Amino acid sequence: MTKARTNPGRPPAAHVHPRDVRLITALTALADPVRLVIVRELASSTDWDRTCGSFDVPVGKAALSHHFTVLREAGLIEQRDEGARRVNRLRREEFGDRFPGLLDFVLSEERV
Amino acid sequence: MTKARTNPGRPPAAHVHPRDVRLITALTALADPVRLVIVRELASSTDWDRTCGSFDVPVGKAALSHHFTVLREAGLIEQRDEGARRVNRLRREEFGDRFPGLLDFVLSEERV
Repeated sequence: MTKARTNPGRPPAAHVHPRDVRLITALTALADPVRLVIVRELASSTDWDRTCGSFDVPVGKAALSHHFTVLREAGLIEQRDEGARRVNRLRREEFGDRFPGLLDFVLSEERV
Repeated sequence: MTKARTNPGRPPAAHVHPRDVRLITALTALADPVRLVIVRELASSTDWDRTCGSFDVPVGKAALSHHFTVLREAGLIEQRDEGARRVNRLRREEFGDRFPGLLDFVLSEERV
């Protein structure tokens, strides 16, 4: 029997494509300091390099998990499981197609 | 004795200039369907033409008053009292100087 690469107790994360995201949902997802840090750190990282625990944010595991759900449901991030690790990428291109300029604007703002 | 033009029982609205507004505050203010309607209707109206009661939004007086406070505190609108009427304008230029492109993006989005 081969050992499964994915964690058997954990369902894969549900995603929403940016094309199906409403403006309010996108703005709400970005209107949070923790989520802005995640989005900014992902923007300066290679796709799939960052695990969920690798972000410099002052929140516990349950809150962090909620933030990732909000980001997925706004079409901002994609996640996949690699063994016990869940890794992330920013959906910069698809999100940019749906909301031209919004992510670039948010990433260009120095102040939170 | 002359009759005062302003309503004596009502203090003038407190404002925040866009230059003093944080990105999160601006995004939060825009991430609401009622406030988006107000912002869009103001964008297509002449400055100071619109009273607070003139917007096509499905909320009561207390909720509406809260929405105007959020918009003022995000530097999005300016209000002044003309007799018993409180009238509004969108701070399009000042807000655009602080957050270039954000308001234009939101106004250009057809879907809420």
